[in-house]
Amino acid sequence: MILRNAVVDKIRRIFESYGFEPMETPAFESWGLLEVKCGHDLKEQIYRFKDKKNRELGLRYDLTVPLARVIASNPQLPKPFKRYCISRVWRYEKPTIARRREFLQCDADIIGSSEPISDAEVMVVAADCLEAIGLPDFFVRVNNRKILEGMLDYVKVGRERELDIFRAIDKLAKIGPEGVVEELARVSVSMSTADKLLDLIGKKGEPDEILGYATKLLEGIEVAMRGCDELERILEYAREFGMPRGRAIVDLSLARGIDYYTGPIYEIYIKGSEKIGSVAGGGRYDTLIELFGGRPTPATGISLGIERIIELLEKRRAFTIPRVVAKAFVASASESVRKDAVAIMQKLRRSGIPTDFDLTRRRLAAQLEYADKRGFRYAVIVGEKELRENSVVLRDMLAKKQKVVKIDNLVHLLKA
Amino acid sequence: MILRNAVVDKIRRIFESYGFEPMETPAFESWGLLEVKCGHDLKEQIYRFKDKKNRELGLRYDLTVPLARVIASNPQLPKPFKRYCISRVWRYEKPTIARRREFLQCDADIIGSSEPISDAEVMVVAADCLEAIGLPDFFVRVNNRKILEGMLDYVKVGRERELDIFRAIDKLAKIGPEGVVEELARVSVSMSTADKLLDLIGKKGEPDEILGYATKLLEGIEVAMRGCDELERILEYAREFGMPRGRAIVDLSLARGIDYYTGPIYEIYIKGSEKIGSVAGGGRYDTLIELFGGRPTPATGISLGIERIIELLEKRRAFTIPRVVAKAFVASASESVRKDAVAIMQKLRRSGIPTDFDLTRRRLAAQLEYADKRGFRYAVIVGEKELRENSVVLRDMLAKKQKVVKIDNLVHLLKA
Repeated sequence: MILRNAVVDKIRRIFESYGFEPMETPAFESWGLLEVKCGHDLKEQIYRFKDKKNRELGLRYDLTVPLARVIASNPQLPKPFKRYCISRVWRYEKPTIARRREFLQCDADIIGSSEPISDAEVMVVAADCLEAIGLPDFFVRVNNRKILEGMLDYVKVGRERELDIFRAIDKLAKIGPEGVVEELARVSVSMSTADKLLDLIGKKGEPDEILGYATKLLEGIEVAMRGCDELERILEYAREFGMPRGRAIVDLSLARGIDYYTGPIYEIYIKGSEKIGSVAGGGRYDTLIELFGGRPTPATGISLGIERIIELLEKRRAFTIPRVVAKAFVASASESVRKDAVAIMQKLRRSGIPTDFDLTRRRLAAQLEYADKRGFRYAVIVGEKELRENSVVLRDMLAKKQKVVKIDNLVHLLKA
Repeated sequence: MILRNAVVDKIRRIFESYGFEPMETPAFESWGLLEVKCGHDLKEQIYRFKDKKNRELGLRYDLTVPLARVIASNPQLPKPFKRYCISRVWRYEKPTIARRREFLQCDADIIGSSEPISDAEVMVVAADCLEAIGLPDFFVRVNNRKILEGMLDYVKVGRERELDIFRAIDKLAKIGPEGVVEELARVSVSMSTADKLLDLIGKKGEPDEILGYATKLLEGIEVAMRGCDELERILEYAREFGMPRGRAIVDLSLARGIDYYTGPIYEIYIKGSEKIGSVAGGGRYDTLIELFGGRPTPATGISLGIERIIELLEKRRAFTIPRVVAKAFVASASESVRKDAVAIMQKLRRSGIPTDFDLTRRRLAAQLEYADKRGFRYAVIVGEKELRENSVVLRDMLAKKQKVVKIDNLVHLLKA
């Protein structure tokens, strides 16, 4: 929790520095809302229940759907509306180390701007978060649903099946080309068409090269051209925001599993830890708010995967996290000084130094053993002799060194 | 959310300064655990559902039950174990302004110490939170379940009905003496006994006086004597911690509605706002952990009612909360300077000044109107003419004043 709080605090500071405002919504939403655009697999993963009035509800599976619901029912909000939300979501999945049934999502979204600069901004804010957290060695995989749509036109597959096809394509890294062909067969895509598609989406690399390839190949397919142009502009804006060239690759196989995306999509990975999956992902969802009864409103957003980020930080021991929040432990050498010990402790606490003490009247040795077990860095030992000279013993539990210091200097010493 | 985050951050800082460590548990627990000690009314308010494996679950109705579950199943944790938790809980109640079906609880608990100094510490940490938040005019109502038990002995009512009786007594302020007599009749307490009980619990006031009265009246009833002694010591410790005499009154009618309390109990109110209910409450629950299969472990804790606190702060306008987190809005006078505007903005953001800008390519006047609507204090207007002299226009949106300043001075000026 100490690490987690440190990470969340950093993300929050970066989100706010970019002008995203905090917003929270309830843990559950009406079932009718949740099931709309989640896709079959996710739908099965939603915790569903009824309240006492027999209304069908579900625990939210992400933070985007509740956001779209709020925007749809509050058309008066000034646009663009930028909000962040760091909160829990629930999915009934097979639990793994970095994927629990309850997990934290960290989202930043921009509602009401269709400009590619908005997509660039949410991508860059996520990148800045990763830098701030201590994971600077990331890269961004980028694609555009519009290019994928253009490919369907190119191989002459009707758009009515596009969501099924995108979900199948998105599993490429997970289940391999044969797996994708199998999944595609299940939605009546012939093997030869599937092969053609796989060939197209197999390209990834430096943006200029891949976008050049796609532009040439899909020439005349308007939706694909728009998709390429958007990506080009997004990556240019990202550079203006300060993201160095070379951070992003275009990967034509990226589709993302959720149904509500309509345009640019991206995923961020840590180099050498691709196996763990993306640490952030997002994209544009221009039709979701309208679908929930709102006015047609463009929207784009990104979500950071806190659980994976924390797993990575723990593996790397990227920064030292103390085992306790509290810094000092006040120990009493005898019952007779307990009152003084409490007074000294309260002075430390009110000076902003997190401090704890003994609550069980045990002996000094047992107090210090407890302080050591909990991981306190400093012990302040209050004894009769030292008290007579307005002093205490300050013990560095790590260095196992101690010295007598004036009580008046204690705050200063511990702050230093 | 801005106010809420400010309040939560302050509470977190105080909790941590007292040596409470952060701990979180999942939103739902097994139904069997939740229903154990909640009492009939609360049980009806729990959101209950089954997962895909048909396990009975429920959304937690407080943070104490999950804590007790964690302690019961982790006997190795060093004691005393002090944790805080600021998180959501759910109850299906009739919603009011300060009472929603989903709300935030802020709890601090000490596990593994039976010493009255622990009860004093959780009471004082809550008091310190209220001071820090800007609600210093509070008072504490204190009582002890042990004194109430002694009263049952005194009026010769069997202890097997004590929970029903305590729940009835606890409603005194809400439903009046007649209501309590009625509730007591329902659990077979005769009217004359009920009258006697009401007479006993009617006493409240200065601790010395009320404890003196109770000690004399219940002389020879051991459990009551222990209860009085505990309260005396708790209040003495609270004074040692720095809580001025006169903050606390003993109120013999205080029972608290939840079943798991076993000893001292308290509620904190804001003077003049008693009608809104308590802003914090807590007590000792020495049997709960054992009940969940753990070793016998004493425990005491307090919970702050964030929703009520926020309602009070909003009513009092106790401190000014900005309408936006972001401080400055960067506006571009023309499309030609957009790139420079982005560079200036990124510099501000990375210097720790939350900054936003235009994402829709609208004209300058429309940009400033938007910035005003959202509540930004400062606008940084980037124009070609000023740029040539490495300057921008800095506009105070509140004072409606502006001046030309060097870009190099911008961070300094906005920080000041």
